Amino acid sequence: MEDIKNRIRIEELLDRVVSAEEAASWIEDGMSLGLSGFTRAGDVKVVPRALVKRAEKEPLKVSVYTGASLGADTDKLLAESGILHKRSPFQADPAMRKKINEGDFYFVDIHLSHVAELVRSGIISIDYAILEAVSITEDGMIIPTTQVGNSAIFAEHAKNIIVEINLAHPLSFEGVHDIYDPGKQGERMPIPLIKASDRIGTIGIPVDINKIKGIVINNEMDSPSTIVPPDEETQIMANHLIEFLRKEIAEGRLTNSLAPLQSGIGSVANAVLHGLLVSEFEDLEVYSEVLQDAVFDLLDAGKVKFASCCSITISEEKMKKVFGNFEKYKDRLMLRPQEISNHPELIRRLGLISINTALEVDIYGNVNSTHVRGTHMMNGIGGSGDFARNARLAIFVTKSVAKGGTISSIVPFVSHVDHTEHDVDVIVTEQGYADLRGLAPRERVELIIENCAHPSYRAQLRDYYYEALAKGGQTPHNLEKAFSWHTNFEKTGTMLETEKELEPTKN
Amino acid sequence: MEDIKNRIRIEELLDRVVSAEEAASWIEDGMSLGLSGFTRAGDVKVVPRALVKRAEKEPLKVSVYTGASLGADTDKLLAESGILHKRSPFQADPAMRKKINEGDFYFVDIHLSHVAELVRSGIISIDYAILEAVSITEDGMIIPTTQVGNSAIFAEHAKNIIVEINLAHPLSFEGVHDIYDPGKQGERMPIPLIKASDRIGTIGIPVDINKIKGIVINNEMDSPSTIVPPDEETQIMANHLIEFLRKEIAEGRLTNSLAPLQSGIGSVANAVLHGLLVSEFEDLEVYSEVLQDAVFDLLDAGKVKFASCCSITISEEKMKKVFGNFEKYKDRLMLRPQEISNHPELIRRLGLISINTALEVDIYGNVNSTHVRGTHMMNGIGGSGDFARNARLAIFVTKSVAKGGTISSIVPFVSHVDHTEHDVDVIVTEQGYADLRGLAPRERVELIIENCAHPSYRAQLRDYYYEALAKGGQTPHNLEKAFSWHTNFEKTGTMLETEKELEPTKN
Ligand SMILES: CC(C)(COP(=O)(O)OP(=O)(O)OC[C@H]1O[C@@H](n2cnc3c(N)ncnc32)[C@H](O)[C@@H]1OP(=O)(O)O)[C@@H](O)C(=O)NCCC(=O)NCCS
Ligand SMILES: CC(C)(COP(=O)(O)OP(=O)(O)OC[C@H]1O[C@@H](n2cnc3c(N)ncnc32)[C@H](O)[C@@H]1OP(=O)(O)O)[C@@H](O)C(=O)NCCC(=O)NCCS
Repeated sequence: MEDIKNRIRIEELLDRVVSAEEAASWIEDGMSLGLSGFTRAGDVKVVPRALVKRAEKEPLKVSVYTGASLGADTDKLLAESGILHKRSPFQADPAMRKKINEGDFYFVDIHLSHVAELVRSGIISIDYAILEAVSITEDGMIIPTTQVGNSAIFAEHAKNIIVEINLAHPLSFEGVHDIYDPGKQGERMPIPLIKASDRIGTIGIPVDINKIKGIVINNEMDSPSTIVPPDEETQIMANHLIEFLRKEIAEGRLTNSLAPLQSGIGSVANAVLHGLLVSEFEDLEVYSEVLQDAVFDLLDAGKVKFASCCSITISEEKMKKVFGNFEKYKDRLMLRPQEISNHPELIRRLGLISINTALEVDIYGNVNSTHVRGTHMMNGIGGSGDFARNARLAIFVTKSVAKGGTISSIVPFVSHVDHTEHDVDVIVTEQGYADLRGLAPRERVELIIENCAHPSYRAQLRDYYYEALAKGGQTPHNLEKAFSWHTNFEKTGTMLETEKELEPTKN
Repeated sequence: MEDIKNRIRIEELLDRVVSAEEAASWIEDGMSLGLSGFTRAGDVKVVPRALVKRAEKEPLKVSVYTGASLGADTDKLLAESGILHKRSPFQADPAMRKKINEGDFYFVDIHLSHVAELVRSGIISIDYAILEAVSITEDGMIIPTTQVGNSAIFAEHAKNIIVEINLAHPLSFEGVHDIYDPGKQGERMPIPLIKASDRIGTIGIPVDINKIKGIVINNEMDSPSTIVPPDEETQIMANHLIEFLRKEIAEGRLTNSLAPLQSGIGSVANAVLHGLLVSEFEDLEVYSEVLQDAVFDLLDAGKVKFASCCSITISEEKMKKVFGNFEKYKDRLMLRPQEISNHPELIRRLGLISINTALEVDIYGNVNSTHVRGTHMMNGIGGSGDFARNARLAIFVTKSVAKGGTISSIVPFVSHVDHTEHDVDVIVTEQGYADLRGLAPRERVELIIENCAHPSYRAQLRDYYYEALAKGGQTPHNLEKAFSWHTNFEKTGTMLETEKELEPTKN
């Protein structure tokens, strides 16, 4: 029990250590749970599992709110056990995705910065906050692990708290978090952060320890990230991005240290950021939501001098390196609540360069990040909207085709809009980039088709546009055919029109 | 010349008074102009007219940037003269609308808070700022008239400035403006505004007087607003809004003085705000973009204690009353740059209740504010996105039908998305309201159809939804039919399907 006393540094709390099963037994049917966990990092691991087990024997429905997606197969277990009434705000698990799209439970896809306001206002009310921690300090603070996510706001507003102390995370995590609560709207003061590295809050989550109903011990590492490594194509995308950023420097809009960078989840955004390793940019700062592998490569290379985030989601190999030598990174890192990492006030003030991945983009620059063919949820909007809405530069990256070329990521009309033409500044594909700032729809079309679309779809896109143009309007469209690419794909398995495909051989 | 010396209080500037024709003669082909003017208020009136006259005799193309729409038929004259290369960020003139939709010139429809950042970064570069003023002070400040709009940022970044001193506006306007420049991104400090009534800047726009190339005198009132007065239907909409706000108070989320209110342009938003006159709410604050008639009625009734805005656009009758007794209103009003009235930092901090008008809304809560049938520009997004993206409550109002019932404002899929499902909290029509917060798409559908759609379209909407539902997905759609309502309207002049229309009589 020696170690436990270092981890739970308030005597009376030691008595509240219970098994996962016992903690899970307190949850009642119909309750709302607020879980730690953000893109597989810092999630509670054993209580949810015990809860799912319990649900095998008795009918039980709960709503589960988190930071973002969970690791340890928890989202899969929750989805498949049938325990869910509602899940929000983000997930990225294939099994859960399937259940969402079958309508098995409600999935509420909201901006990650909005969760805290919804909890504060009581639209989301939390019965149990279940939070992973490295420790509970003598002064009653919960020290989170590899994420802060929504843990602070859940702890503040939950009726009860269950803590999972994770022995697999070293105590050296103490001091890397920065917990700040802006307070109630209308009564709050400016958030005093003016640089990515500013500390504005406390190193832990202050809680009323009477609300801590139980403490469970776990000893499990986070699930490693599942992103695929950079490849030749993503390096080409990174090169286009670098070319764009160089142009910005040449025009006096940026310096060689750019501006604080935000980079979204997923393989593509990670790979593009990784591409900056071979750039001339230096003294970079990161003010992001999730740190993926690329940021640690950039820290190691001395390219990035400071990185602020709300979670760390890295591969198995990187975990060993980073968490094994955490002291080496600690003074160049800060972990904050997702309300702060994604806060409009700070995003606009710092003037972030924000790089997120699109599923599809249309010829006018509207972006779909969430819905496959307009109907089926992929992961969720996550923080991409928080950043795109308020950033200095809202950049979206995507490969120009998907599924072996049968899907064009550039379409006439996106089948779902997550980021409107008003919020999208630059599109980057492996073909090139389109800088849309200050341009009218008719000016955008040309750039997007010629610079970003895959050559095999360009003629088809031009055909759509010219036919639409004949009908006039600020934003020419032929609504009869706007979604024909998507419906064709469903019928024929490809967005390529056969005639078009054959045309080149006719010449 | 007595009066002029009160208006131009720097001796050497008196020599720079010129005719509108002379000032217009300085503009060169291809230049970009930054004009004062925001929703018909405080626009420069005589120089643009002289410029259009000049263009009758010689080929001339310019790009025109403003705060928002212009009065005095200037947008009509600009559009019809063929002088425009580009126009941004907003307009509301039928003749200009027609030319935009014919593709005569480029119209760039952007968030009103973004213009200043684009000017600061040089994406928009201004050759001449042409700004209406009540006076130029002894210490070199330009005092705007009934708007601030983008005048401060244009003045700062323009190569040259032309001032139109408007004698029709009383000198008592001095002291009502609050000019604050947040400075460069990455170097800026928190904006020190914590209440709608806080003064944070100077009473005028500080300028380098060497840049003032000429001063023109005008003596013309602003064009009165063209909104139609409240009617029975808008009072019903206001009552639904009041009912919603009462529920918020009952649930402890708001007090009887609500939260600072923003209300968009247009007849509907004005009428809905007007409806608060008969509510029990009091000590209200307004933190808005444009003040329309309703706010002055609320000020007169003692309901509103303070109103911050970036322009005042009122009817002829109200103008006489308000501008004729300006001292009576002055200490309860503040006019700020549109970057500040629409700033994400302040909108989130103050926790605004934002009420804007939609053209159409879809069954999942996406909103179209700009494009008729997806292609034809109405006015522009204006500030609606600035507010909806970051407000405490993003409320959209619309009548449930338009054009005598042939158009349903609730459709299966909006033909253009300006505000995504992630940014829309509440929909209000004369039928009722739908509070979408915390709800999944499948939960939203029911509320929107049953509470907001017109009864004559409900069955048709349900049919669309149930057919879509059979195909599954997080957000059920039938992409083959998603825009069929719009295309049917084009073919048959109504969105009503004949069979459905007949159905009730069959029973
Ligand atoms: C958009 C998003 C799904 C892309 O993920 P990614 O891993 O970078 O990108 P990939 O190109 O590997 O695409 C992922 C999958 O979508 C598929 N896909 C890509 N474009 C597609 C399209 N237009 N239509 C259908 N499927 C598509 C890919 O084929 C791939 O499928 P697979 O998993 O079966 O191989 C992901 O970035 C996301 O969820 N974004 C929204 C949240 C967000 O941006 N958060 C940022 C703040 S942290
Ligand atoms: C959306 C907007 C056009 C509504 O204006 P309004 O004057 O309040 O509303 P009305 O109901 O009178 O509608 C205006 C016109 O659009 C038409 N209309 C309304 N809904 C329509 C629809 N779904 N399809 C086609 N036309 C529609 C009306 O019939 C009316 O036409 P008319 O001028 O020929 O009579 C206006 O609010 C706007 O431009 N908003 C965007 C900018 C904004 O919100 N700024 C807010 C921050 S200041």
